[in-house]
Amino acid sequence: MSQIPIVGFVAYSGSGKTTLIEKLIIVLKENGLRTAAIKHDCHTFEIDHEGKDSWRFTNAGADITIINSDDKTAYVKRSGLEFEQLIDLIHDVDLVLVEGYKNLNIPQIGVARKATGKGLPFEPEHFIAIVTDMEIDTAVPCFGLNDIHPLAEFIIDRMESGHTLSTILV
Amino acid sequence: MSQIPIVGFVAYSGSGKTTLIEKLIIVLKENGLRTAAIKHDCHTFEIDHEGKDSWRFTNAGADITIINSDDKTAYVKRSGLEFEQLIDLIHDVDLVLVEGYKNLNIPQIGVARKATGKGLPFEPEHFIAIVTDMEIDTAVPCFGLNDIHPLAEFIIDRMESGHTLSTILV
Repeated sequence: MSQIPIVGFVAYSGSGKTTLIEKLIIVLKENGLRTAAIKHDCHTFEIDHEGKDSWRFTNAGADITIINSDDKTAYVKRSGLEFEQLIDLIHDVDLVLVEGYKNLNIPQIGVARKATGKGLPFEPEHFIAIVTDMEIDTAVPCFGLNDIHPLAEFIIDRMESGHTLSTILV
Repeated sequence: MSQIPIVGFVAYSGSGKTTLIEKLIIVLKENGLRTAAIKHDCHTFEIDHEGKDSWRFTNAGADITIINSDDKTAYVKRSGLEFEQLIDLIHDVDLVLVEGYKNLNIPQIGVARKATGKGLPFEPEHFIAIVTDMEIDTAVPCFGLNDIHPLAEFIIDRMESGHTLSTILV
């Protein structure tokens, strides 16, 4: 049983959450951190390649398919899971980055992009930080859309201070 | 915590384990059983489609990527897991079918196909059943390569008798 820091990223569609998280993962890894990323997809998504063995098992009707090699493990389940169940799947990482679980009670970073024509999905004070190309009048720390290194530093500082990012028990 | 029956399928390469398990999953599902399939892959395998969000997270360096929708969950980990760790990922199924973990201490079904030029990887008595197109002199129940329904019945009977298939605790 250990505690893993967790942080969410919420925004209106088209604000660039996925790209932001992708870039953050790279920078966090450069800093020696092992990350897990959890994405909530509102749509049906496809994973795996038609005709591969794991695809064949899932397609035949297996409720869970797992394929495991020395250097990779993949798992596909034919049903959604509650967030708490997803967390149970996570071990041996230093930080969990979460995309798209708007109503989760975890520290959230808000993302707002001018081009979407929308602002943040919640009041600025809802967030521990804001990533945006807009002028937002708030005392909450704000970062530009390409300020990946300063944002990574902000997250790492909060992790190291040990009390300003919530943690999950796994 | 519950007990889930488990059965393995072992054979020399090219004997048709994957096809057999694929067909079994279909028949077991017709019989109302929820299955999980676990495959050990000796090689590096690819899952996910280049450019998809989950692929982007994994490719950026996330040690674990999870994507979750209402009807599907997928998980990719950039390392292999021990068999016991794979079992921890399994819930809410009636039976676990395992391919390619030859040395696992679970009930195993041996598969042998004449065309491979090889027989069974272990003595016939190592197995609870044998699936083959060869003549094998043994008291162990034997099934033809296409006897999917009788084999499924055999497995279900053993599950129902509750003591002849080992179970795992989850």
